[in-house]
Amino acid sequence: MITKPTLLIDGKKCRSNIRMMSDKAKKHSLTFRPHFKTHQLHEVGRWFREEGVSKITVSSLDMAQYFAGDGWDDITVAFPVNVLEIDTINELAKKITLNLLVESDEAVTILAKGLNQSVNLFIKIDVGTHRTGILSTEQTKIRKIVEAIESSDKMNWKGFLAHAGHSYHASGKKAILKIHEDCMSQLAKLRNSFNDYPDLIISYGDTPTCSIADSFPVINELRPGNFAFYDFVQLNIGACSQEQIAVAMACPVVAKHPEREEIIIYGGGVHFSKDKMHHFGQVVADVELGWGGFQEGVILSKLSQEHGTISAPKDWIDKTAIGDILKILPIHSCLTMDLMRHSSWIVIS
Amino acid sequence: MITKPTLLIDGKKCRSNIRMMSDKAKKHSLTFRPHFKTHQLHEVGRWFREEGVSKITVSSLDMAQYFAGDGWDDITVAFPVNVLEIDTINELAKKITLNLLVESDEAVTILAKGLNQSVNLFIKIDVGTHRTGILSTEQTKIRKIVEAIESSDKMNWKGFLAHAGHSYHASGKKAILKIHEDCMSQLAKLRNSFNDYPDLIISYGDTPTCSIADSFPVINELRPGNFAFYDFVQLNIGACSQEQIAVAMACPVVAKHPEREEIIIYGGGVHFSKDKMHHFGQVVADVELGWGGFQEGVILSKLSQEHGTISAPKDWIDKTAIGDILKILPIHSCLTMDLMRHSSWIVIS
Repeated sequence: MITKPTLLIDGKKCRSNIRMMSDKAKKHSLTFRPHFKTHQLHEVGRWFREEGVSKITVSSLDMAQYFAGDGWDDITVAFPVNVLEIDTINELAKKITLNLLVESDEAVTILAKGLNQSVNLFIKIDVGTHRTGILSTEQTKIRKIVEAIESSDKMNWKGFLAHAGHSYHASGKKAILKIHEDCMSQLAKLRNSFNDYPDLIISYGDTPTCSIADSFPVINELRPGNFAFYDFVQLNIGACSQEQIAVAMACPVVAKHPEREEIIIYGGGVHFSKDKMHHFGQVVADVELGWGGFQEGVILSKLSQEHGTISAPKDWIDKTAIGDILKILPIHSCLTMDLMRHSSWIVIS
Repeated sequence: MITKPTLLIDGKKCRSNIRMMSDKAKKHSLTFRPHFKTHQLHEVGRWFREEGVSKITVSSLDMAQYFAGDGWDDITVAFPVNVLEIDTINELAKKITLNLLVESDEAVTILAKGLNQSVNLFIKIDVGTHRTGILSTEQTKIRKIVEAIESSDKMNWKGFLAHAGHSYHASGKKAILKIHEDCMSQLAKLRNSFNDYPDLIISYGDTPTCSIADSFPVINELRPGNFAFYDFVQLNIGACSQEQIAVAMACPVVAKHPEREEIIIYGGGVHFSKDKMHHFGQVVADVELGWGGFQEGVILSKLSQEHGTISAPKDWIDKTAIGDILKILPIHSCLTMDLMRHSSWIVIS
């Protein structure tokens, strides 16, 4: 029985999302290396293993350690290497195939000094997100990094890693496909200019493009993560359907304010995260062992630390009682899961 | 040695903040019942105990259990009672003095049916925040709740609890004092209309008014929480000085983009939370065993799950190296602490 804010993971929907993406990778002869930062759970990781996945992506060395602890032995940390964690890097690289990300010769040089184990390195390419990485056209910078890598006997240069994160700002399939095609074109030119390295791996991620695109020339590896759960952001972008969203929060009703068309739930920023679109979450119908369709006009409109405010029409509030459980689709499943994995989550179906 | 995102708690500043508020409560002959939702740590709780504090406030039954585990035996859960957690309520009420919050006769009736231990009840008054609670003028509603409470032999009505949360939207001391005086006037009228209950306790909270006001007629109990750490929000409101902020994040530099005046740190939404003002955090000078003044124009401008983007002038970036640690004042210390208590925090000084 649910008594406090709890993340519901619909196992059936999640496994179906995993199979969909795994099939797409197979169809295009790509290595499937899903990002595990979305779920951060051994339990969900095992569903991927059942689909034949053996290589994974994470976004921190802590996460790499956590999943290495469940037998994953080929892990890419898709985050600019944090040279201060050299002890953890050596410890992990002793046990598993560890793939790290670099984007400056400065980082490579520091890393080389501290390594006592072999690691694989990918160079981070900025395909348009402009968060971090090197532009595909910055050949001199890239060659300098490759040189620095090749001067160490503990480092193997494996290729390039790109993340089309700017697809999150796109709206609709057409806009996402345009970004995708632009990325493919950049990466094709990049591969061309490095044809002195025939075994180069190009790893490519982000859930919106990987969900929508069906043509992946140039690249070798598919690295999306969020698709396992999807969420309201992905739905809004056009990357998934309402039925594919595999997580919902279940929160108790603790107070009612029909005079201002509001309900107070136990469920706040420490449960949902403060990621917001027009609201903090969409209320869905309560269905035994899961959830149903959108409740039109019933949204999570405000959040403080533990309180959530649901805005709803008065007649909807009249049907709701203190002690009821409301089910709510989160805006950003990665951040909600990151919070709830410390407190309360269950797998349904 | 700090190698990954770590919350630094300046013990000296925090203890000084605690003493300041404790002295204020003593000066006005008020019970000091600090809110522990900000720190959520046994270690910090003990600093309060050393100042003579024996009664505390929390915002969930989980937190009440955590602090009861460190010997706190008089705890108010300042959140509309979640009737679904009746088992936890009975379990806690067996061991400690448990004070719960109600705001409807509906909740009182459900609670009464489930209680097998005695609890104290406070009625939540909405003094202007309009998050939840009953307006002080809604006498009929309040009397109905009191009646429901008095019809159960397991419930003791203790008084009213108010939180001037709308002070967070005020700007400057004058505006906060105006809110404070309005709250005092509402509560005075409320006490007057319940003078058939001479032992009524009025509990009052929120860090901005408790920090700035120096006149607390009518009320009996002071219940602020954030003041132990303060943060950028409180500074902006005018509730604290830069020197009183007792927590900072320490984050490694992992990449530099001088061409667009940006630095990438290891430190994202899963560390800081996504609470935002004009930015997500203010960079301060690096000082051994602590931090110094604001670095003008150096701010945490963007956050994704694990990445933080620091915007800084080019000459500041030129002085920064990969592997350096940047120190950053968080926007909202409660949410940052809630995240970091699961990963990495240390006490300095």
